Amino acid sequence: MIIDCHGHYTTAPPALQAYRDAQLARLADPARPVPADPAISDDEIRQTIEPNQLRIARERGTDLTIFSPRASHMGHHIADPATAVAWARVCNDLVGRVTTLFPGNFAGVCQLPQVANAPLAASVAELDRCVTELGFVGCNLNPDPSGAWWTSPPLTDEYWFPLYEKMVELDVPAMIHVSTSCNPAAHTLGAHYLNADTTAFMQLLMGDLFGRFPTLRFVIPHGGGAVPYHWGRFLGIATRENRPPVETLLMNNVFFDTCVYHQPGIDLLLQVIDVGNVLFGSEMVGAVRGIDPETGRYFDDTKRYIDAAELTEAESAQVFSGNARRVYPRLDKVLRERGL
Amino acid sequence: MIIDCHGHYTTAPPALQAYRDAQLARLADPARPVPADPAISDDEIRQTIEPNQLRIARERGTDLTIFSPRASHMGHHIADPATAVAWARVCNDLVGRVTTLFPGNFAGVCQLPQVANAPLAASVAELDRCVTELGFVGCNLNPDPSGAWWTSPPLTDEYWFPLYEKMVELDVPAMIHVSTSCNPAAHTLGAHYLNADTTAFMQLLMGDLFGRFPTLRFVIPHGGGAVPYHWGRFLGIATRENRPPVETLLMNNVFFDTCVYHQPGIDLLLQVIDVGNVLFGSEMVGAVRGIDPETGRYFDDTKRYIDAAELTEAESAQVFSGNARRVYPRLDKVLRERGL
Repeated sequence: MIIDCHGHYTTAPPALQAYRDAQLARLADPARPVPADPAISDDEIRQTIEPNQLRIARERGTDLTIFSPRASHMGHHIADPATAVAWARVCNDLVGRVTTLFPGNFAGVCQLPQVANAPLAASVAELDRCVTELGFVGCNLNPDPSGAWWTSPPLTDEYWFPLYEKMVELDVPAMIHVSTSCNPAAHTLGAHYLNADTTAFMQLLMGDLFGRFPTLRFVIPHGGGAVPYHWGRFLGIATRENRPPVETLLMNNVFFDTCVYHQPGIDLLLQVIDVGNVLFGSEMVGAVRGIDPETGRYFDDTKRYIDAAELTEAESAQVFSGNARRVYPRLDKVLRERGL
Repeated sequence: MIIDCHGHYTTAPPALQAYRDAQLARLADPARPVPADPAISDDEIRQTIEPNQLRIARERGTDLTIFSPRASHMGHHIADPATAVAWARVCNDLVGRVTTLFPGNFAGVCQLPQVANAPLAASVAELDRCVTELGFVGCNLNPDPSGAWWTSPPLTDEYWFPLYEKMVELDVPAMIHVSTSCNPAAHTLGAHYLNADTTAFMQLLMGDLFGRFPTLRFVIPHGGGAVPYHWGRFLGIATRENRPPVETLLMNNVFFDTCVYHQPGIDLLLQVIDVGNVLFGSEMVGAVRGIDPETGRYFDDTKRYIDAAELTEAESAQVFSGNARRVYPRLDKVLRERGL
């Protein structure tokens, strides 16, 4: 079985965006009414999933996608807590319906109603709701809710601990995933996403978060940002900063996905990072949707790169499903119950 | 001949830091006197260069280093223009003395007296002084003088054009290099430096700067940040954003150094990026000073990785000197005059 750990509902029906627009209009003009939840039929959901994520997954031969709301639309920079709560609930409910309509193909991961530097109680509550009521298996955690202004403390700061406590209690991991960039200097997909991955890893390297939360788990997407390419640099900085060995400090708790869109990048990732820390992911349908003129294949068809990499069958099974089942034990439990 | 395009005077005599401390003390208390220029003898300079950069270069078999003031101490976040001008002048004069004392071993690159969002006239003047009076061959350009708050416009914005006009007039390139991070979220060496490299490349990809300045040249250090590892992502985003081919849009003007501190990273860089766009660099003595326990060699001994890479003799000569002589024509001219 092949589990794609990184998919977003980027193709949601237009009623979702209309709801968001109404939310933002009301923030600009509080005289407007609170928007009603978007009316989206099951058929509309099917029509946006079947010809997109589901078709592509079938074509590529992947089985199940760990699925979350569209990352760039999480919009945590909209600094109104009530708006954030309602928006996360609506987005998560919609993902929940996808997982109900296609239980064999999708497992849910939730968006949190984060607001930069605001207390995390609402995020804790939404995570609890999504996991215990909707059957979700993880969450997306935004290390920079300001949208590329980086106003939040590092992930090792106790500001984040209430969320970590809930994650540990529920035994769910977080993917560290920012949302859109509001900073003209940082392109969302080409700079902010990758920078956030690198920044988060370095924050973790400088702290001892997993000494305090030994079972806390993070997936750093986009192949770990710049980290595997600069693995020697990170080991060297760790030495210089008198950090414990990276293997024990981080690598029982930190995992990278395979959203790296060419063969040399995937080869490097699998050469440098222990295979037990790499989870298959494609971010399909995501940031990079085109066809690579050199290969004639979709850039984000990352399964092909892994198939072409020098892995044993056992290693390949780890990357394609074993690691995901270990990092997302609630997914593993569901799959076991289904005899998978 | 082997040219290291990326070295900083990280070992400068303590009088330099004492001068900086006096500058900052005066900013806090304007009643203090303007500090006198640091008194540093030629012998002190020799004693900080010979057992450090020069010894290591000889041990590694490199000949000449393109040398600039310590990047993390440029301190452009200190938002006082007069302080920035004096600090850049003092730092550049010291690098100038290094190039005078060791003319066969060092060529100068200057620090600019940048202040976030302030006019660039002082930077233009300092660049002109360093090139025409001190014989420097390039400059370091900080795309984020705020120190990891990213308050400046993208490098494609006309804010930067006065500097580019001077660079074109003098025919000198800039290395895109940030200074220390003032943002607790972003570690200077492990996050901010790499993020800046990635961010700058993406800014250039979204603009048409070299259509306007066809002879402008940038070196993006640290192996291009995350860019080569994610080359497929950048090509895919370029397609998605309807950008012209990256080769013609950027790769006549943008170059990456080899400050990537392990063999797989260098192998990927040389596999993905045209060899004509890669300049040997080590950042020695720089961010990563330790010995890799796996190899028993210094992490930043990047010459070894390149020697071990699969390059023809001609390609190797390009990376080790030919490209640098092309990107830094004022250096090439000096070398030719010496019969090199």
